[in-house]
Amino acid sequence: MGNTRDEKRAALRSRLIEAAEDQIARHGIGGLKARAVTTQAGCALGALYTAFEDLDMLILHVNARTLERLGSALKSALGEGQGTPAQALQAMARAYVDFACANRALWIALFEHRLPEGVETPDWHKQDHAVLIEVLIGPLSQLRPDLAQEALVLRARTTFAAVHGVVLLALQGRFVGVPMAQLHAEVAALVETMTRGSERGQAETAR
Amino acid sequence: MGNTRDEKRAALRSRLIEAAEDQIARHGIGGLKARAVTTQAGCALGALYTAFEDLDMLILHVNARTLERLGSALKSALGEGQGTPAQALQAMARAYVDFACANRALWIALFEHRLPEGVETPDWHKQDHAVLIEVLIGPLSQLRPDLAQEALVLRARTTFAAVHGVVLLALQGRFVGVPMAQLHAEVAALVETMTRGSERGQAETAR
Repeated sequence: MGNTRDEKRAALRSRLIEAAEDQIARHGIGGLKARAVTTQAGCALGALYTAFEDLDMLILHVNARTLERLGSALKSALGEGQGTPAQALQAMARAYVDFACANRALWIALFEHRLPEGVETPDWHKQDHAVLIEVLIGPLSQLRPDLAQEALVLRARTTFAAVHGVVLLALQGRFVGVPMAQLHAEVAALVETMTRGSERGQAETAR
Repeated sequence: MGNTRDEKRAALRSRLIEAAEDQIARHGIGGLKARAVTTQAGCALGALYTAFEDLDMLILHVNARTLERLGSALKSALGEGQGTPAQALQAMARAYVDFACANRALWIALFEHRLPEGVETPDWHKQDHAVLIEVLIGPLSQLRPDLAQEALVLRARTTFAAVHGVVLLALQGRFVGVPMAQLHAEVAALVETMTRGSERGQAETAR
């Protein structure tokens, strides 16, 4: 009996996650309504709050799925981009742009969702985000063997945020952003410039 | 008579802009309410809609003021950072971080405000944003004299977006962002890496 109940609860949770994912993909995170999610999942409105505490927690589960897919895309690019660290960074940057373009609303939701004032992101979900930084550590440590682990992690965050900024302003269609038609080329140029600058930085430090 | 009417209208508009600016600075753009703005400006709710068409247009005027102040800060950093293009870029990046930290909600409003579906940003306001890119053209053209004007403008947008991304993820307190305590140092390291990479790119192209 207990098992069947757990199974039912798990099935309800995944139906709700799938419905919320579909709603966010179609209307963006700003347009997400609990009622539309539960209608699509085929359950009562109240069921959402027993299965997930609240709509914000449901969104975190959608974001977790998006991060898992994004993480896989980055890891497989890292695998393909064998050879120089520059090639690995380029392959991952391309994969990041491709993923953001193909999953626009879900990708934006990763960075636009905010928990209510005073609510901390649960640790399990922070861990979901870690992949975005972890994949960069290998190639960066090859480029900058002079940096200690802590400095390396900071530099990985900065490198990620730099590429992210270019993709974000372009996809939001901001006036100061790069036009979509040039996005791949400009991200590639940025990564190339950062890679070259890092190699040279390392050369200068070593001198 | 006509003149007095125009003066009254202009005075009402600036009271509304100041009130909206204060409201955004205190509660963020998401919490902006037309009623709170008109109460603070000391006018009827309807006066907002005769003075500015709607709340979105009022926000554009607040953003225009913010961009004017931000533009002045960048231009004065550009003036101080005389010497190498690297010094100029570093001075402007520092000024950008300082401005964003000191004017958090107003700065975020520049990049979070969206006009309703189908409404285009008016040309006058696009022009307000142009300063963010224009200040970069001088130093970048010194670093990369090999680039044609069009490529240079694209590179300026990319450079801006890269620094912007690092500041944004840090200020939003995103898990993958750089901690605030390291923000200045990491932005400086990014600008240094990009500058070095550009110099080297130019050297290689010239070879």
